[in-house]
Amino acid sequence: MSAPCHCKHGESNGITEHSQLSPDLQQQFQDSNHPANLICELCRLFYDNNWVTGTGGGISIRDVDNNPNLVYIAPSGVQKERIKPWEMFLVELPDEKVLRSPNDIPKELTKSYKYKPSACTPLFMSCYKLRDAGACIHTHSQNAVMITLLFENQKEFTISHIEQIKAIPKLEKKDGKVVKVGNLEYFDKLVIPIIENTPHEEDLTDSLQDAIESYPGCTAVLVRRHGIYVWGETVWKAKVYNEAIDYLLELAIKMKMSNIKLVTNE
Amino acid sequence: MSAPCHCKHGESNGITEHSQLSPDLQQQFQDSNHPANLICELCRLFYDNNWVTGTGGGISIRDVDNNPNLVYIAPSGVQKERIKPWEMFLVELPDEKVLRSPNDIPKELTKSYKYKPSACTPLFMSCYKLRDAGACIHTHSQNAVMITLLFENQKEFTISHIEQIKAIPKLEKKDGKVVKVGNLEYFDKLVIPIIENTPHEEDLTDSLQDAIESYPGCTAVLVRRHGIYVWGETVWKAKVYNEAIDYLLELAIKMKMSNIKLVTNE
Amino acid sequence: MSAPCHCKHGESNGITEHSQLSPDLQQQFQDSNHPANLICELCRLFYDNNWVTGTGGGISIRDVDNNPNLVYIAPSGVQKERIKPWEMFLVELPDEKVLRSPNDIPKELTKSYKYKPSACTPLFMSCYKLRDAGACIHTHSQNAVMITLLFENQKEFTISHIEQIKAIPKLEKKDGKVVKVGNLEYFDKLVIPIIENTPHEEDLTDSLQDAIESYPGCTAVLVRRHGIYVWGETVWKAKVYNEAIDYLLELAIKMKMSNIKLVTNE
Amino acid sequence: MSAPCHCKHGESNGITEHSQLSPDLQQQFQDSNHPANLICELCRLFYDNNWVTGTGGGISIRDVDNNPNLVYIAPSGVQKERIKPWEMFLVELPDEKVLRSPNDIPKELTKSYKYKPSACTPLFMSCYKLRDAGACIHTHSQNAVMITLLFENQKEFTISHIEQIKAIPKLEKKDGKVVKVGNLEYFDKLVIPIIENTPHEEDLTDSLQDAIESYPGCTAVLVRRHGIYVWGETVWKAKVYNEAIDYLLELAIKMKMSNIKLVTNE
Repeated sequence: MSAPCHCKHGESNGITEHSQLSPDLQQQFQDSNHPANLICELCRLFYDNNWVTGTGGGISIRDVDNNPNLVYIAPSGVQKERIKPWEMFLVELPDEKVLRSPNDIPKELTKSYKYKPSACTPLFMSCYKLRDAGACIHTHSQNAVMITLLFENQKEFTISHIEQIKAIPKLEKKDGKVVKVGNLEYFDKLVIPIIENTPHEEDLTDSLQDAIESYPGCTAVLVRRHGIYVWGETVWKAKVYNEAIDYLLELAIKMKMSNIKLVTNE
Repeated sequence: MSAPCHCKHGESNGITEHSQLSPDLQQQFQDSNHPANLICELCRLFYDNNWVTGTGGGISIRDVDNNPNLVYIAPSGVQKERIKPWEMFLVELPDEKVLRSPNDIPKELTKSYKYKPSACTPLFMSCYKLRDAGACIHTHSQNAVMITLLFENQKEFTISHIEQIKAIPKLEKKDGKVVKVGNLEYFDKLVIPIIENTPHEEDLTDSLQDAIESYPGCTAVLVRRHGIYVWGETVWKAKVYNEAIDYLLELAIKMKMSNIKLVTNE
Repeated sequence: MSAPCHCKHGESNGITEHSQLSPDLQQQFQDSNHPANLICELCRLFYDNNWVTGTGGGISIRDVDNNPNLVYIAPSGVQKERIKPWEMFLVELPDEKVLRSPNDIPKELTKSYKYKPSACTPLFMSCYKLRDAGACIHTHSQNAVMITLLFENQKEFTISHIEQIKAIPKLEKKDGKVVKVGNLEYFDKLVIPIIENTPHEEDLTDSLQDAIESYPGCTAVLVRRHGIYVWGETVWKAKVYNEAIDYLLELAIKMKMSNIKLVTNE
Repeated sequence: MSAPCHCKHGESNGITEHSQLSPDLQQQFQDSNHPANLICELCRLFYDNNWVTGTGGGISIRDVDNNPNLVYIAPSGVQKERIKPWEMFLVELPDEKVLRSPNDIPKELTKSYKYKPSACTPLFMSCYKLRDAGACIHTHSQNAVMITLLFENQKEFTISHIEQIKAIPKLEKKDGKVVKVGNLEYFDKLVIPIIENTPHEEDLTDSLQDAIESYPGCTAVLVRRHGIYVWGETVWKAKVYNEAIDYLLELAIKMKMSNIKLVTNE
């Protein structure tokens, strides 16, 4: 808290901005559960967690309730905590046809900024195609980066016998498809693959897909010296998994610092 | 702070939601001190402290002011910082008869989600029955987990000669009943028993009850690799004890890291 | 941030509460700069900093703008982040006559709680009498406690050659009175005396007064295994000194952990 | 979160204050993107990050959208999280002629406080003149101070092969002028010069200018035992660079503590 709250109630600015949108978009964005609004809300939350500092990280949500072929994607290179619902790209699966681009929004709102979809887009799409995910989160969490540095020669992060593991889904391959069969148990070993970073984010696509294929039980992939990708059946599941994993990474760093083993055979 | 405050004032959403409730519930939830509202408020606070990340932790409050037999319990497996007052289970002591379930709430509000009471319920009930507590808090605080890891072979956490200890109640067994006789003094030794975790939360009940019986002076029990249970005469006392204990656990970790003894004989 | 802001605007509760006060008090508390309101505001801030967790810490403000003989004191044993302006004790110097007590406030507001002035009161009074302070802050800051543990055999905390030192006042004794002659310079050595804790807070009075007398240059006193007292010419100066000192204590702990000397002879 | 939000909506105070300003200023400050308002907003954000605790740090913004010769400068020695838009100094380049001073504002608003422009002013001006920056941020970030202490004998901070580096601009000298040619790549080495602190902030000007000249690729300069200066083409770029650099400094400290090399030759 930095002083008595500084919010601008009934902020005229906001109202003006909205009135420049088409009536259809104005109405859509009235709904605080609209995927475009949820991206804004979660980006602010992630920013406060130091997960998307600068312009890092990204998030994409499928409209699972109405039309799962519709995918909302945050733009690249903007301050994540300040994006507005009309700044999202809207693409349609399976062809990734762009249905709406923030570059089509009235210039008064966007100040003629030339938007590009998040560089993570091919990675988000991989999670949608290979896992039928409902949302995918990418952060630069320092816990994610540090764990890949502390275990610099390992290709996996593993931890067991911590209660929080029970928040992570138990996934199994059935008839060629990965399905959720419950949640991990306390004594289960959580395994998250670690892939090596590449100079360009899109070049991670192949190794991310390999990891997803090789680890049918995983709902996240760590990227060394970079961050983490986490997905889930819905945006809220993705949020919960991401939180639980970051909690476990934070704890694992403390355990490693104190020479406590991450996996026990209790 | 992630940007100028993003609150939605007079949020139409909220009003709509409320109007779907019965007039009686609508009126009850007007009172910000209603136990169901206090659970919501405290869960948001605990979330910001990283105590109930993911869907971890839980809280239960007895309506000590009006009818101490009424117990409000947060549901299991939901995001704690987002629960609403109508998502609570209301049960009546001593039979734990369910008087109201969120599964009876209009489906428009709950999106047909099938609620279960917190898995901590038998543990909360143990605190009510054995100690006549007014509220019980369960968190996955990393300080709680770390202290049980740093003292992996100990069955107790102990600390003395820290001012904050004076926030903890001094309890004594009188005529077979544990009563509060004041607060711990600066030179007193705070003792919190540590029990071993079990795969299923309800299976902790026996060992929690044993610890409560064996340590009549305790107002909290640590669960190894899991978290902590804290209770108090009222919800506010439980909150204060939980805060003070977490402060002491955080400090104890720092002291241990610096090879400073937790108990002195000054 | 735990979710879209949950504030209650035009909260009917608040208005009701106010209407139970006398018209005079209602009017006084309209002013957000009233000392009683400033105590509330700063306690919330300190709570968010983990300085007054549980019910720890305290604060007192003199009404320097209107009548410097009027002293507002937060009550003892209550949750500091939730106190209301009418819960303060108002006493008059030099006799410390109680002009107003929260115990005289309508019982509907106080729920018949029996208030006591902060146990720090004699310590606050010492700062007023010996230093003519305008406000005095007492916290249980973990940085303060840790520094007294890391330097367990020292009677002083000292640091030099850190820019933030320039926020601390330079005090000198002139004609038997301590006066501010400017601010410390970058190369000056900040010295804060450390006194030993006592079981009862009021028993710290003698050693606090001794420290204040022996260290005419100090604007703060550390209490081992307990916390810190910081005062200033006005409430804002006290806040700034307290913040700058806590910053320096936090930095000093990190320096000590990395074997970097706190005082250099550059 | 310290309790249900305590904001004062439609705060009469704020309105009164504004009404004492000239109609022209009242209108200017209606715009939340006015440089004077942005300084207030960012100072609150920086305060919450512990970057401008006490009265430390500073910020200056040029009005790049309207008249790049107009420079807004925060005042010296005030609580950064509480400054108001009318407390800024407004000067005109290149002569630094003072167009407006908070000392000319109605005394009811300023309580007759005698304002001075930030002691960083000559350093801000150096960034404007040598680099044509649009804004300059100065903080006392503990990460900045600690890195200069951990590498006490080094004149540079360097780090490579961390994804977040890609948020930093790639600058090159062309025809005697430093221009942005893109962003650093993942494998690039970020280099930030470290200059030695001086007793008086303005005496840093020469060495800051030397560093800026010697390191045409830098967008920031660390000041040993003091903090950091970061600039950018616009206020938002400066904010993003500052955040990304602080993230990297925080990570670098953790890496150093764990004996992980900051620069790799992968």
